[in-house]
Amino acid sequence: MTTFDLAEHPHLRYNPLTGENVLVSPHRAKRPWQGQQEETAAEQKLSHDPNCYLCAGNKRMGEEINPDYEDVFIFQNDFAALQDTTPEGSYEEDELIRVKAERGICRVVCFSPRHDLTLAEMEVSLIRKVIDAWQEQYIELGAKDYISYVQIFENKGAIMGCSNPHPHGQIWAQSSIPSEVAKETFTQEKYFAEKGKSLLSDYLKKEQKLHERIVASNDSFTLLVPFWAVWPFETMIVSNRHFGNMTEMTDAEKDDFAAIIKTATSVYDKVFDISFPYSSGIHQTPTDGAYPGWHFHMHFYPPLLRSASVKKFMVGYELMGNPQRDITPEVSARMLRELYENTKEEPVL
Amino acid sequence: MTTFDLAEHPHLRYNPLTGENVLVSPHRAKRPWQGQQEETAAEQKLSHDPNCYLCAGNKRMGEEINPDYEDVFIFQNDFAALQDTTPEGSYEEDELIRVKAERGICRVVCFSPRHDLTLAEMEVSLIRKVIDAWQEQYIELGAKDYISYVQIFENKGAIMGCSNPHPHGQIWAQSSIPSEVAKETFTQEKYFAEKGKSLLSDYLKKEQKLHERIVASNDSFTLLVPFWAVWPFETMIVSNRHFGNMTEMTDAEKDDFAAIIKTATSVYDKVFDISFPYSSGIHQTPTDGAYPGWHFHMHFYPPLLRSASVKKFMVGYELMGNPQRDITPEVSARMLRELYENTKEEPVL
Ligand SMILES: O=P(O)(O)O[C@H]1O[C@H](CO)[C@@H](O)[C@H](O)[C@H]1O
Ligand SMILES: O=P(O)(O)O[C@H]1O[C@H](CO)[C@@H](O)[C@H](O)[C@H]1O
Repeated sequence: MTTFDLAEHPHLRYNPLTGENVLVSPHRAKRPWQGQQEETAAEQKLSHDPNCYLCAGNKRMGEEINPDYEDVFIFQNDFAALQDTTPEGSYEEDELIRVKAERGICRVVCFSPRHDLTLAEMEVSLIRKVIDAWQEQYIELGAKDYISYVQIFENKGAIMGCSNPHPHGQIWAQSSIPSEVAKETFTQEKYFAEKGKSLLSDYLKKEQKLHERIVASNDSFTLLVPFWAVWPFETMIVSNRHFGNMTEMTDAEKDDFAAIIKTATSVYDKVFDISFPYSSGIHQTPTDGAYPGWHFHMHFYPPLLRSASVKKFMVGYELMGNPQRDITPEVSARMLRELYENTKEEPVL
Repeated sequence: MTTFDLAEHPHLRYNPLTGENVLVSPHRAKRPWQGQQEETAAEQKLSHDPNCYLCAGNKRMGEEINPDYEDVFIFQNDFAALQDTTPEGSYEEDELIRVKAERGICRVVCFSPRHDLTLAEMEVSLIRKVIDAWQEQYIELGAKDYISYVQIFENKGAIMGCSNPHPHGQIWAQSSIPSEVAKETFTQEKYFAEKGKSLLSDYLKKEQKLHERIVASNDSFTLLVPFWAVWPFETMIVSNRHFGNMTEMTDAEKDDFAAIIKTATSVYDKVFDISFPYSSGIHQTPTDGAYPGWHFHMHFYPPLLRSASVKKFMVGYELMGNPQRDITPEVSARMLRELYENTKEEPVL
């Protein structure tokens, strides 16, 4: 009789942050590897592109002209999904037809005037400026009485719906707490109420002991593949210290956060020798109250599976049933960690 | 002072089947329409392709040779994500590391030996044979003591991760109830316990009165855009009568189900004048007990937004926060309904 083996047999892993499961099918990774293996030629990019609506001095989609910015530049999204002028309103016909007006603000954050860089290619000191900007935005937007949550995120690469390669992210701040954040709030506050410690501190302690899914770390942050990761190369940056949001970060922590973001993104670029696409997002405390259980972290969800051109499709079964993955989190973590070990020997920018 | 208007202002809509929200940003649909408008030339397909591993008489990925099948052909997925040989096992180190072995069966359902057809192009009488096969599979797989749920689904189009255009779907049957189904079970059983009627019967009644989101209907089924739809052209087929699964369908209902599937898929093909990609899936009662509240339905999640080549990206904000859409369900429903009205005048195959 065979015994159950995580590295061999299909199984469900529970995500304690969302309360949901992922179906892991390790044996499927044995499918013939049909994806491409060649190095993809990097496209030539200008450091300033006259046709880019995010480059300094250029005209945007609307009428506005970008200033001659030097590091980070933030403006209101010209096609914002949320507006601060939305009038209040709601109706609940009954349980079945329920609507609530949603007020908010959408901004675009250009990480650098250099059109041809990515976070992976930026100097840590310049990533640090992005972090300062994120912190200021979190404070400014979170202080508004009608804002309950500030979502900072980046869509990188055309495959992630990003049509402009100029390094940039977005911030959507809104009056409700969005679904994913609500799930993480529920689980983290419950855990903290029961144990007096944060869920992610306890989880991190376990991972530090096992060292099977940790990719890299510094004094303030750990980069790891969560046990319950859904995307083939999903990772999470967790703060070593338990704090809820960016306002609580020390200066040293902000430097370390910049450094670990550089590590994460540059390791990614080595996976398939291309500028690795992903969506990333910072999860931190909602701004409408006190959340002692919340533990600051950042998710990276990269879509690729087998090569620069073969992605993981979250489709029929995943949409109707359950997220599913083939390669195990442990295998991905080992790949990323080995790439990191190699990276370390290279001179730092 | 402006008053809140569903067709104008950003808002959250509640999905009573899953308990989650979708952020609707109607004004974003006013963005300049940059997608392509041209008719996409349909690719020439052979009725039997010697290189297709799903065509009759051909060799599959493994060693096996497909039989000379005449209508529907079902076989075990050669790279199944679930296996019926998985040994039992689980461990719960504590709340944070929780795993359960998952046993199951994955099958492929070829809808027709004709390589060049899709459900939209098949005669209703031949779609009916697919439905008979689905019903048999649901009964056979659901009867196994280690199976709790039978997920029938289709990924159509390369954009939905389907690499073979031969008309086919899949069935994944497994020992747990997957996340999406668990949510729908919770909400539907709760509603039924409280009201003695199914959630979807009450919802359908509302939609029939408003007639704003209904696309088409026949004696047994209604095709509509749910009030809480996430994907730009998402639809749902709901049975007019409250029953939980395919075993309860009458002969006439099976014919009507075939007809409404033909309607749904052929209306879709008119949206951008291409064979419309989607993932579809049937949601029905889990097979591990009695679920009096469950109401049979089928979801269609098409990825396209603006043209044959511009899809809706569910990325940064959607993955970190909340599903989001631009075009309102009412606008999509009107488009689909008008296309349906035109279709009706064409001679039926
Ligand atoms: O089983 P297939 O067709 O190879 O694979 C397709 O459908 C599966 C079920 O939705 C997904 O897990 C895969 O990502 C997708 O490419
Ligand atoms: O706002 P953008 O960059 O135009 O749009 C991109 O990110 C948004 C937020 O994740 C998504 O809603 C869009 O589907 C995506 O294309």
